Amino acid sequence: MKKSLRSIARLHCKNNIVLQIRNASQVLPQFSSLKYKIERKNFGVVDSSDVGFFKSILDEQRVLTDENDILPYNIDWLKSCRGQSKLVLKPKTTKEVSKILKHCNERRLAVCPQGGNTGIAGGSVPVFDEIILNLALMNKVINLDDVSGSLVCEAGCVLENLDNYVRDRGLIMPLDLGAKGICQIGGNVSTNAGGLRLLRYGNLHGSILGIEAVKADGTVIDCLKSLKKDNTGYHLKHLFIGSEGTLGLVTKVAIHCHVQPNAINLGFFGIKNFGNILTLYQRAKSNLGEILSVFEMADFDSINSTIRNLNLRNPIADYPFYVLMETHGSNEAHDHEKLMKFLSNEVETGLILDGTVTSEPAKIQSIFKIREGIASAGFQEGYVLIYDVTMPLKNYYDLVPMLKKRIGDKALQVYGFGHIGDGNLHITIVVPEYNKEVISLIEPYVFEEVSKVNGSISAEHGIGIRKPQYIHYSKDQSALQLMRDLKKLMDPNGILNPYKVLPDL
Amino acid sequence: MKKSLRSIARLHCKNNIVLQIRNASQVLPQFSSLKYKIERKNFGVVDSSDVGFFKSILDEQRVLTDENDILPYNIDWLKSCRGQSKLVLKPKTTKEVSKILKHCNERRLAVCPQGGNTGIAGGSVPVFDEIILNLALMNKVINLDDVSGSLVCEAGCVLENLDNYVRDRGLIMPLDLGAKGICQIGGNVSTNAGGLRLLRYGNLHGSILGIEAVKADGTVIDCLKSLKKDNTGYHLKHLFIGSEGTLGLVTKVAIHCHVQPNAINLGFFGIKNFGNILTLYQRAKSNLGEILSVFEMADFDSINSTIRNLNLRNPIADYPFYVLMETHGSNEAHDHEKLMKFLSNEVETGLILDGTVTSEPAKIQSIFKIREGIASAGFQEGYVLIYDVTMPLKNYYDLVPMLKKRIGDKALQVYGFGHIGDGNLHITIVVPEYNKEVISLIEPYVFEEVSKVNGSISAEHGIGIRKPQYIHYSKDQSALQLMRDLKKLMDPNGILNPYKVLPDL
Repeated sequence: MKKSLRSIARLHCKNNIVLQIRNASQVLPQFSSLKYKIERKNFGVVDSSDVGFFKSILDEQRVLTDENDILPYNIDWLKSCRGQSKLVLKPKTTKEVSKILKHCNERRLAVCPQGGNTGIAGGSVPVFDEIILNLALMNKVINLDDVSGSLVCEAGCVLENLDNYVRDRGLIMPLDLGAKGICQIGGNVSTNAGGLRLLRYGNLHGSILGIEAVKADGTVIDCLKSLKKDNTGYHLKHLFIGSEGTLGLVTKVAIHCHVQPNAINLGFFGIKNFGNILTLYQRAKSNLGEILSVFEMADFDSINSTIRNLNLRNPIADYPFYVLMETHGSNEAHDHEKLMKFLSNEVETGLILDGTVTSEPAKIQSIFKIREGIASAGFQEGYVLIYDVTMPLKNYYDLVPMLKKRIGDKALQVYGFGHIGDGNLHITIVVPEYNKEVISLIEPYVFEEVSKVNGSISAEHGIGIRKPQYIHYSKDQSALQLMRDLKKLMDPNGILNPYKVLPDL
Repeated sequence: MKKSLRSIARLHCKNNIVLQIRNASQVLPQFSSLKYKIERKNFGVVDSSDVGFFKSILDEQRVLTDENDILPYNIDWLKSCRGQSKLVLKPKTTKEVSKILKHCNERRLAVCPQGGNTGIAGGSVPVFDEIILNLALMNKVINLDDVSGSLVCEAGCVLENLDNYVRDRGLIMPLDLGAKGICQIGGNVSTNAGGLRLLRYGNLHGSILGIEAVKADGTVIDCLKSLKKDNTGYHLKHLFIGSEGTLGLVTKVAIHCHVQPNAINLGFFGIKNFGNILTLYQRAKSNLGEILSVFEMADFDSINSTIRNLNLRNPIADYPFYVLMETHGSNEAHDHEKLMKFLSNEVETGLILDGTVTSEPAKIQSIFKIREGIASAGFQEGYVLIYDVTMPLKNYYDLVPMLKKRIGDKALQVYGFGHIGDGNLHITIVVPEYNKEVISLIEPYVFEEVSKVNGSISAEHGIGIRKPQYIHYSKDQSALQLMRDLKKLMDPNGILNPYKVLPDL
C-alpha cells in the first residue's frame, strides 16, 4: 500500500518550519503494530450502528470514515508510526466528548485522543483501529482575566493562536515550543510539554490552574478553577498532566499567563567546548538572574545540518558549539546594560569566542528559526531517530560522542542540542533508511546510559508507543504498579489510548 | 482535665513570632471529636504487643507513651483541635516508616502523620487515638547540586534550616512562610503550602522535582528524581502534594532552589482604599515585572492589632490599607532605579499616600515581622478564628466588611490581609471566647460567599478536619467521587489521617 504523503503534508504543513516532510515520493510508514510487534487487545469493533450513533450526536462532516480523509490522522509527525483507524470524530463540546466516551466505554471501543499530533513518541496516533478523537474543533478561548493573567480555553486551541491572543492583551503564554503553530494546548497539557522557556516560566504542573477532563466512562471531572491557590482536597488536575490521554481526555484548560516583557534580547554565541557552556550557564544565572529566559545549546553538526538543509544563514562563523540565550525584562536599558557587561566579561574570559546580540524582532525570529529548525532538518537527508532525555548537567553531552562512536558510519549524522536550563538533551540520528540493526545498537543502550546517571529516558515528549518497554529505566516497580492501579481505577476497560505509556506485564 | 499549656509552649515556642501562645492559664482545647461531633471509626486499638513491635524497630526514646510527653503532639497550633493519641513514633528512616505503616495497615491501626504542626485546618493532629507519626527526626539534607539548584532532603527538615543551608551556597528556597522556623518541608509539600513569594517563584507543584513517599501498606514509592523534566509515565509525585497525608506519607523531597538575589528591597506603603491596591498591583506587575517577589496587603485593623499586641512599631502613619512589596533582583542599581521611578510615579498619582523603602537587612526583617505577626496577633485578645480563602481579585476584600456587618459587636476584631499576587485572603476574627453562636453566623456563610464568586474555601491551608463538610463549596460531586476512589485505591483500610479532607458520604 504505497501512497503519496501529500495528504499528510496538507494537514501538517502550515507555516511552521518543524513540519517539513520528507520527499513526497517516499512510501507510507510501516504499521506501528508490525513495527513494534503489538497484538490487538480484545476491544470491540466499530460497526454501522456505532457510526450511526456518533452521527446522531455530531453532524455528519465531523464523523470521518473515508480512508483518504483519515490517513493523515493515522500517521505521526515523525512519520515513524502508523495506525489503522477507520473513524475520526471531531467533537465541538465537552458534552459531545462525554457522550462519545460513554458509548465507547459501554461498547469497549478503544479511543485515541489527538491534539496537534506533533509529539515524537507516537502517542497521538492509533496502533490498530482505535477511534481517533480529534480535538481540533474545540478551539475557543473562554475567558481571559488580564489582571490575574488567567486564561481559560478549550483543549483544541493552537498554542500560537493563544499566544497571539494573550499578547494582544499584554501577556504571554508560559510555554513556547518549536511546534507552536500546530500543537494544541490540550496536547501540551496531556504530554506535559516543556519547551524553550521552562527555565524562566516553569513547567505546566506549576502553570496550569485548572483542568476539565472527561474520564473513560464519560464522567466530566470539573477542576477548571482559575485560581492560583486552591487547596481543597486532592489536586486532581495533575492526574491529567503528562498522562498522555490514558487517564482521561483534557477538554478545557485554565493557565497562568505572564506579563509580556517590555524588552527582549537574543544572543547567539560560538563556544569552544561543552565544559565552557556549563560555566557560561552558571555565570548567566548569577549575572542575569531574573531576566534570563532561554539558555539553549547546539553542537556544530546540529547547526550545520539545519542551515544546510533549510537554506538558512548562520549569523556567525563555524564553532564546535553554540549557545542561544534570550532575556525577557521590563526595562530595555537595564537589560541591555546587564547583558553587555556580562558578554564583554565572557568574551574577555574566552568563554564566548564570537557572537551576535539583537533586540530587533526580525533578527530574533531569524535566529530562532535556526534553533527551531534543528528538529526537522534531518528529514531532508534520511530516516530520523530522535531521542529526548534529561541528563544531570555534568553528563549532559556525554551521550553524543558515545553514540557517534558506537554507530560509526552506519549513521549519516549524530548530533545533540537542547535546553541546558533544564538538562533536556535532544539527540538526532539520521540514517539512510529505517534499519533495525542500527536501532538495536541504540536501544536500549541509550536508555541504559541515561539510567546509569539517574537521568530521564523521556524529558518532554512522553512514553507514547515508542518507550513503554523502556520505562523501567526511569520508574521502579512500585511506581509502575501504582501507575497500573491508577489506570485500572480511571479506565477499567482500558479504552483510552491503549498500547501507550504502560508496559505489558 | 485542665492542664497548663506550658508543655505545648515548650514544643512550639522556638524563636518564631507566629507561635505566641495564649495566656497559659487558659484551659486545654476541647477534644476535636466532641467539637466536630465525629464518631470513631472501626480501627484497631494499640496494645502492648504493638508498642513492643514499634520499640523493636525504633529505639525506646523514639516511642512516646507518656501522657504528658504526648500532649503537645495532640494539640494544633491554633489550639482549636485536640486529639487523644496515646502513642507518638519518631522514625529516622524511610525503612522505619515503611515497617511502621505495614504493621499499622495489617492491624488496622489509624495513623496521623505530623510535620511541624503549624497548619490551621487541624490536619496534623489526631482526632481519636491515631498513632502520631512525627517526622521531626528525618531532618537530613541528602544532596545539593548548586549548578542546577536541586536540593534533596528528608521530609522532617525545618524550612528555615533548609533556607539557611542553601543560602550558604548562593541559593534560596522557592517558598517562604511565616511559620518557616518550625514548619517542615514534608508538611509543606503535603499541604501544598504557598506563602509570600508564590507570585515570583511559583507553587510547589512547579518547584517539587521529586518525592519519596510511603503508601499505607508500607510500599515505598520512589519518585525522588531531581530532574527538571521527566515525562516518563504518570506524574505520581503530585498525588502526595496537597493530599494532607491521606494518600501516603512523604519521606523525602527534591526541590528546585533559585539563585539568591543580589539585591533585595522592601517597601511598606499606606493606601487609601482597596481599589487603589489593585491598581497599584497591576502597575507594579508591568513596571517591576521580573523583580517583583512579594505583593501583600493588610487592612488597618490587621496592622494595628499586630503592632499593639506584639509591641512592634508601625514605620509609617495610620492608613486604611497597607501594601508590603518586595523586589528580588540581580543588580542593585537597576532595581533601585526601577523601584524609585515606580514609587515616585505612584506617589504622584496618589495611589501611594506614604511609605518607606529599605534595602537594609535589619529594617527588612523588622517590617516583615509585622506582616508575619498578623496571623498570631489576635491570640493576645481572645479566641481566634482564621479563614484562608482565594477570591477573584475584584472581589478580594468584599468578605471583610460583609463579615464585620454580619457579626457586629459579637467579635472583638475582624480583619483581612493576604497575598494579592495569588488572590489569597486571610480573615482573622477574634471573639472573647469559643462561641458556637458566632461560628454559626460565619460558617457556612463565608464558604457560600466564596463559592458564589468561584473562589476557593481553602487557599493554602488545606481541608484538614475543619472543612470536609464544606468541601462541596469548592469541589463538585464527580471530583469528590474521584477523590474517594483514589483514597480507596491508595489506602483501602483508610488508616492514613482519617476524618480529614474527605467528607463522609
